[in-house]
Amino acid sequence: MKDLLIRSATEADFNAMWDIFHTHVAEGETYAFEPGISREEGYDYWFAPRASTFVAVQTLAPHDRRGRERVLGMCKLQPNQVGRGAHVANASYMVSPYAQGVGIGHMLGEHSIGEARRLGYLAMQFNYVVSTNEVAIHLWKRLGFAIVGTLPKAYRHRRLGYVDAYVMYRLLDDPARWPLPEPAPEEDD
Amino acid sequence: MKDLLIRSATEADFNAMWDIFHTHVAEGETYAFEPGISREEGYDYWFAPRASTFVAVQTLAPHDRRGRERVLGMCKLQPNQVGRGAHVANASYMVSPYAQGVGIGHMLGEHSIGEARRLGYLAMQFNYVVSTNEVAIHLWKRLGFAIVGTLPKAYRHRRLGYVDAYVMYRLLDDPARWPLPEPAPEEDD
Repeated sequence: MKDLLIRSATEADFNAMWDIFHTHVAEGETYAFEPGISREEGYDYWFAPRASTFVAVQTLAPHDRRGRERVLGMCKLQPNQVGRGAHVANASYMVSPYAQGVGIGHMLGEHSIGEARRLGYLAMQFNYVVSTNEVAIHLWKRLGFAIVGTLPKAYRHRRLGYVDAYVMYRLLDDPARWPLPEPAPEEDD
Repeated sequence: MKDLLIRSATEADFNAMWDIFHTHVAEGETYAFEPGISREEGYDYWFAPRASTFVAVQTLAPHDRRGRERVLGMCKLQPNQVGRGAHVANASYMVSPYAQGVGIGHMLGEHSIGEARRLGYLAMQFNYVVSTNEVAIHLWKRLGFAIVGTLPKAYRHRRLGYVDAYVMYRLLDDPARWPLPEPAPEEDD
């Protein structure tokens, strides 16, 4: 798909993001949220205090009546844990149902890996990939993630009932190059 | 240890809980939090909006100057995910460093499993058990949890540097008895 770019998301993007979000949530096959979620909760999810949020937009010709850009997907990066786990990034992604299969998920995935490195993260983790979401699993494997855990029956799929979820993970750098631990404490204290 | 009981935690317990919490955090070997965490953040963690929080207390003889109860540990239960993942409980535990090895962790573990069942949870998950915390891992295995995932180098241990963390999980009931999925949607729409 041509004229695609990824940039930081702003509040002005949220209408379009909410449309995408709500469609996925209604489907009930990939994310934990349920249709009753409010717009405010959706906003707080995508623009969480410590999150870096990005949108994939298609730039449109100036004569296009819908405006100069169209949001086709989004992702966010944030620490998966506080403090002693804050070197691992967590990320979430959604692609518009009208733009599936054209590589936007792949673009967002690559972008988020680059941003995570730039922000100093050492690893990335997805906590809750629905095991029946084969497109996503295939994509994350292509981008270097491995399934490192299986959560039995942890996702209540709208059509299929309870199905497993996966934890997926990748290092962003060779741990031999990671920072050293803190100076040895005074063991005599 | 005699005269021990577990009851719901109240705001009045937080001074004692904060002492326990802060000692563990300073140690930097089991939890993600760092010593800089504020009392308010600690409170918000233990009394999160959707959490059920419990303390293990030793009831003291009336002549004991420190009061009639002493808090020796605490735990909380909350949904590990919203909506489609809210049938899985997440739990956290801490035991006073002055009451290690006398079975308080085991009591809290058993209590939380019972409470989780009573609250309607179908499974329980620990997202982030530090792999070098052998006492905890042994305890959770005894209580029916299994290591279902390994997060490489996901914990920055104060003494040891980056070490793995585990995801641990147990079902609380036979999935054959779990509720059925929602009615089939109109696939023609």
